[in-house]
Amino acid sequence: MNYAAYFAGNREKHLAELKEWLAIPSISALSEHKEDVNRAAEWLVQTLERAGLENIKIHPTAGHPIVYADYLHAPGKPTILVYGHYDVQPVDPLHLWQSPPFEPEIRDNKLYARGATDDKGQLFLHLKAIEAILSQEQSLPVNIKVCIEGEEEISSANLHHFLGANRELLAADAVLISDTELLGPGRPSICTGLRGLCSLDISLRTANTDLHSGTYGGGVPNALHAMAELLASLHDKQGRVTVAGFYDDVPDLTAEMRAELARKGTDEEALRQRLGLSALFGEDGYTYVEQTGARPTLEINGMYGGFQGEGTKTVIPCEAHAKITCRLVGKQDPQDILDKITRHIENHAPVGAQVSVVQREKGNPFTIDTSLPILQKAANAYERIYGVRPVFTKDGGSIPIVEALSRELSADVVLMGFGLPTENLHAPNEHFHLENFDKGLLTIVEFLQTI
Amino acid sequence: MNYAAYFAGNREKHLAELKEWLAIPSISALSEHKEDVNRAAEWLVQTLERAGLENIKIHPTAGHPIVYADYLHAPGKPTILVYGHYDVQPVDPLHLWQSPPFEPEIRDNKLYARGATDDKGQLFLHLKAIEAILSQEQSLPVNIKVCIEGEEEISSANLHHFLGANRELLAADAVLISDTELLGPGRPSICTGLRGLCSLDISLRTANTDLHSGTYGGGVPNALHAMAELLASLHDKQGRVTVAGFYDDVPDLTAEMRAELARKGTDEEALRQRLGLSALFGEDGYTYVEQTGARPTLEINGMYGGFQGEGTKTVIPCEAHAKITCRLVGKQDPQDILDKITRHIENHAPVGAQVSVVQREKGNPFTIDTSLPILQKAANAYERIYGVRPVFTKDGGSIPIVEALSRELSADVVLMGFGLPTENLHAPNEHFHLENFDKGLLTIVEFLQTI
Repeated sequence: MNYAAYFAGNREKHLAELKEWLAIPSISALSEHKEDVNRAAEWLVQTLERAGLENIKIHPTAGHPIVYADYLHAPGKPTILVYGHYDVQPVDPLHLWQSPPFEPEIRDNKLYARGATDDKGQLFLHLKAIEAILSQEQSLPVNIKVCIEGEEEISSANLHHFLGANRELLAADAVLISDTELLGPGRPSICTGLRGLCSLDISLRTANTDLHSGTYGGGVPNALHAMAELLASLHDKQGRVTVAGFYDDVPDLTAEMRAELARKGTDEEALRQRLGLSALFGEDGYTYVEQTGARPTLEINGMYGGFQGEGTKTVIPCEAHAKITCRLVGKQDPQDILDKITRHIENHAPVGAQVSVVQREKGNPFTIDTSLPILQKAANAYERIYGVRPVFTKDGGSIPIVEALSRELSADVVLMGFGLPTENLHAPNEHFHLENFDKGLLTIVEFLQTI
Repeated sequence: MNYAAYFAGNREKHLAELKEWLAIPSISALSEHKEDVNRAAEWLVQTLERAGLENIKIHPTAGHPIVYADYLHAPGKPTILVYGHYDVQPVDPLHLWQSPPFEPEIRDNKLYARGATDDKGQLFLHLKAIEAILSQEQSLPVNIKVCIEGEEEISSANLHHFLGANRELLAADAVLISDTELLGPGRPSICTGLRGLCSLDISLRTANTDLHSGTYGGGVPNALHAMAELLASLHDKQGRVTVAGFYDDVPDLTAEMRAELARKGTDEEALRQRLGLSALFGEDGYTYVEQTGARPTLEINGMYGGFQGEGTKTVIPCEAHAKITCRLVGKQDPQDILDKITRHIENHAPVGAQVSVVQREKGNPFTIDTSLPILQKAANAYERIYGVRPVFTKDGGSIPIVEALSRELSADVVLMGFGLPTENLHAPNEHFHLENFDKGLLTIVEFLQTI
């Protein structure tokens, strides 16, 4: 069967379909987009039907729905659970987008839209690969289950519950996920590690109202000074997190681990230039690849308080807010880390400031053994389509559900990513390079046929 | 002439007029309110006409207009220039207002609205005092000029130009201003010192785009960490500003000055409780009255960057912003202080962060000698209406134009305030206690008749 010709012939139709999906602003974090998130799930139902899948069902949850489908007609063959997500990140700052985030546009063989690479675009490859095989061969070489959620960007809370309650429905030999990256154009990789995640919000209050900076200035605490001091206390000048016990469960990097990570071959100077940075900055004593793949982080994602308008407002603000996420590695436990940060914040509250913390998301770190047969088969499929063998890497990102899927289903996890590191996911001008759209379809077909 | 009866008989009418003016959202800092600022100026024209003033004119400027009027029919008598402003502060955070800021409402003998006390409400007293005397006596005991600007809350840049170009038009023996406070209910004061002001905006940039906190987290600078560190570097733990040379031109407090300031009799514990603070906080080694009256400050008025929405966004922000104002005393020069802060910010830019500074407003500190006859006459007028002699105080606020009026016109300045320290100026729920509306009218009439 000539799948290259098949996909070439259907390319325009497939891209038009994907654009339709990308036009739905399914931002899971913002409650005003709840209906859009639902529409993105409903859009999937038709697409799964068109692919030929069976038992399609939208499972409502306490949050956004989970879409399930399967095709279980390959007795004796392994069962592969395809997982992905149809929700997307928020889009601000909107003014930095060159084309509107929900008006998909192809420029220079790249498809621009929020969700283009994370994860609608990548997930779409699986749906079209399955549709291709079924339409061309009227059967699939393996048993397929599909489970697509709408809360990956807000930590998959309801999929965690669903997974616990539906182990049999989702039971599989392996989970197949495309939500990670190539190393660069033509340089495939298979991710064998993901950092865990936890998040929290800090609020801080001083007086019971904003105060005039002339009348009161100099004699009362300022919530913004207090927040700046508190946030600055979370790292030292060497980029190390200063929260007591933060590194307790982080494994030391052996020479062997450092060598494996170095094979990724990151050009730090080229990276610095591409990002427009005057300097890279991270924890002293580690390379960039180690800092982002094998070391934990604590990042402020948002910080705000006081007057943000034009001009000047001579006010002493009484409230300040910050949002923080951590990436975790090794045996770090998200709840333990959240508790340690909460203690730090309480212990470092500046004079006159009352702090409060809301603990939010939690996801464990994940790793998988590179010698497993299914990982080697995935590597073979990449090699056949891309012409080079993929590198096994550790990704700095988090897909908290990956560790849960692996643990709850006792399944291997194949992280077969087709994004590029330059595709601005979670940022303005997110896009998906269509070279990997085309090669991704063929790689997935190849993989499914050779498991 | 029984002015108490006159004002009692006209009270409802006067309050209705004032409410009409307060309903105009003349926020000078926000360009979308430019038309409202104009409307507030035009409203004044009718009111000045009704008062019986002459030569009423709206003088356009490069910014918001200046309203002038006079009544010069008392040869041989002093000329008094009444100064005030018809612009108001922004209103955010709007959700903390109990009634909308531009829908004036009287509750418990207090008039709630943005501008109620700062400065429309206080300025209005002069217009009605003049109207009262003219209507009752068909003449004024002094020559009166009125100069009302629309840019006091954004540093009076165009009034400074206007003043330089119109020294003759504005020439006066004394300037009379009501834009300051009583010490408390029934405790009048005359302000004999105002702090100077300067302001600047800081922007900070790291990468050329926001970055995914998983992919890049740990290896690149975060604009919010950098801003928190930079802002935290501006003070030490003892509340002292750490900018090199910041205190160079601040006079040491003598035992005499400390004794004079202490006469204000501030109850620090009551103040702390009223503001809902767990603790007051200021520069070590000074009392609250000294900190707010005789020491300079550096306050962050706004700070923002990254995600401010609901939920979590796993992003490394590439931009952060802060707004800063300083209050100055003694011989501190606003431009010198702005330059010193700018140097500090440039010298303390964290690794990987590019900082930029926009210098904004500048106003000199002001002081006046308490033994001047006109100040003693103002004290007499207060004493006759309030029954107690006012205290001479130093106010922590800034009316940068006061020092300029005094210097350019070689005029004394009488700061005859009728606000209360609890009236939330520059904050939600600004209001004006009507006890001082009533007594203020009588005090001004008394003062004008006895100069």
